Amino acid sequence: VSRIALDGMGGDFAPQSNVEGAVRAARRGLEVLLVGDEAQLRPRLEEAHASDGVRVVHAPDAIGMSEHSARETRNRRQSSIYVGIDLLKRGEADAFVSMGNTGAVLAVAFFALGRLPGVDRPALGGLLPTERGQTLLLDVGANADARPPHLVEFARLGSAYMRRATQVPEPGVALLNIGEEPSKGSTLTVEAHALLAARSDIRFLGNIESRELLSGDADVIVTDGFTGNVALKLMEGTASLLFSELRRAARRSPLAAAGALLLRGSLEGLRDRVDYRRRGGAPLLGVNGIVMVGHGRSDGAAVESALVAASSAADAGILAALREAVAEV
Amino acid sequence: VSRIALDGMGGDFAPQSNVEGAVRAARRGLEVLLVGDEAQLRPRLEEAHASDGVRVVHAPDAIGMSEHSARETRNRRQSSIYVGIDLLKRGEADAFVSMGNTGAVLAVAFFALGRLPGVDRPALGGLLPTERGQTLLLDVGANADARPPHLVEFARLGSAYMRRATQVPEPGVALLNIGEEPSKGSTLTVEAHALLAARSDIRFLGNIESRELLSGDADVIVTDGFTGNVALKLMEGTASLLFSELRRAARRSPLAAAGALLLRGSLEGLRDRVDYRRRGGAPLLGVNGIVMVGHGRSDGAAVESALVAASSAADAGILAALREAVAEV
Repeated sequence: VSRIALDGMGGDFAPQSNVEGAVRAARRGLEVLLVGDEAQLRPRLEEAHASDGVRVVHAPDAIGMSEHSARETRNRRQSSIYVGIDLLKRGEADAFVSMGNTGAVLAVAFFALGRLPGVDRPALGGLLPTERGQTLLLDVGANADARPPHLVEFARLGSAYMRRATQVPEPGVALLNIGEEPSKGSTLTVEAHALLAARSDIRFLGNIESRELLSGDADVIVTDGFTGNVALKLMEGTASLLFSELRRAARRSPLAAAGALLLRGSLEGLRDRVDYRRRGGAPLLGVNGIVMVGHGRSDGAAVESALVAASSAADAGILAALREAVAEV
Repeated sequence: VSRIALDGMGGDFAPQSNVEGAVRAARRGLEVLLVGDEAQLRPRLEEAHASDGVRVVHAPDAIGMSEHSARETRNRRQSSIYVGIDLLKRGEADAFVSMGNTGAVLAVAFFALGRLPGVDRPALGGLLPTERGQTLLLDVGANADARPPHLVEFARLGSAYMRRATQVPEPGVALLNIGEEPSKGSTLTVEAHALLAARSDIRFLGNIESRELLSGDADVIVTDGFTGNVALKLMEGTASLLFSELRRAARRSPLAAAGALLLRGSLEGLRDRVDYRRRGGAPLLGVNGIVMVGHGRSDGAAVESALVAASSAADAGILAALREAVAEV
């Protein structure tokens, strides 16, 4: 049974959503270490008639969603993020999950866990739903600036992760670019293309354009953290705009409203597929431990899904696979 | 009456879609100079019972959609793109519109028309539909690499364009970034933020995240051409994925199919709003002439809409406004 440390105080609906998620995951057999202010967590846990699978680990301090100095947040040793990652470091947890301040989680993870040998730039991976399964887009925000060799590192980390997480023996890696030919793109992508094409340990598929991001043609798509973050939030924004327009369209006439009602079941399935909020966390790859960051707007079901994803990653031996892949050089 | 030169040979459905678009625009009173291979254009024009508003200008050569060398394409003086832009240069047309190879149009426009005094990097603007009207995103692909002062140039060009095109007296300009605080982002965006904030001729609103791109909060959003191109194609891809999923959802049961039928009118309105293919062209700002590039997949209606947009831009005196705005320094 894997033991997952959960940041009880992180996220827009914390701590309630985290308590709910922990209880739901515990009912599925996970052991959850719920880290945060005992006075806030314990009563909610009792109210939820928690099973035995949830244990509270007290952390008196909580880092807010809008605190932005990495230098300050990484030293807040009483914070739920720090205490949770420290459980991971000391071997008392197999993974750490937070719906809180992404920058703070990255800063504490870099600082307290350190990087895997051979890794210069850990990257945050976004799991995108496709028709055929999932595509891992990375980096989606750990490195706002990247140089060509970093994109090669992302490709190696992403390949190792997907090989282990999805059982695809040789994951295909594509480079996000603004044209298909090797000569197209920015200085960064043109140089990265040449480096990626020259490697024998990466099954490089070439460039992919953003309109194919959700096509499932690649298992891993690499990009700098600025572009990846813009892309991830844009898909979320476009989908949510379309759904709100759809709701408005449905209100336009009684017939349209009836139509929407008949379609509702199918539409909700669709929404589940594209709604980032309802999906598991984004893995942070390249640090010395399994760390997942979830969406700030996660509800209890999303927290549960992130905990289950973290537990599967731990069970699959993701960390050993990553360590091996990057040490191979 | 404005005279618009149209590249008859550019686009995935050329020349048929261009002939159709030209005829439709002529019926609305525009004078269209349809540039391309006479032997292909004239019979189609006759078939369409063209009004007097369309005149064929012969150009024996056509640049294909997948030809990518700017150095080669800009010297193809017999091509429909070159001949069309030359009409603009010689004052025989007030604007040039192409649904063809964007890179070739940019290369010929830079080379044959030149830049406006004071402009270092012309930019391609993408007009995004919002609830309140339109937002101009630039650059969407003319410059894959950009430095901070280029983003300031884009802001000035974009402001001048929107002031004239939409009658907003002081267009608000935002910087596309991965956080709201001035300190967030890449080296490029942090430096560009400081430059933009220091200018008195730009109403700078600060950073905007990609999930707000379609919110209408800004009249102009500036970014480098790599990020802008990724964003534009990603919105297109996400919207088209959602619509195809919706069609699939509608087929899942007879009730869902009935629902979709009842909703159809509203959904088509929505599709029109988000479908880039059905909208007017993207203006190329900073060259010495009015040039619009449309989507390669434009049908006759989209070509018509691009011609009408180009004609409005010419009538509004966009070029003089741009020239004045960038010469002010």
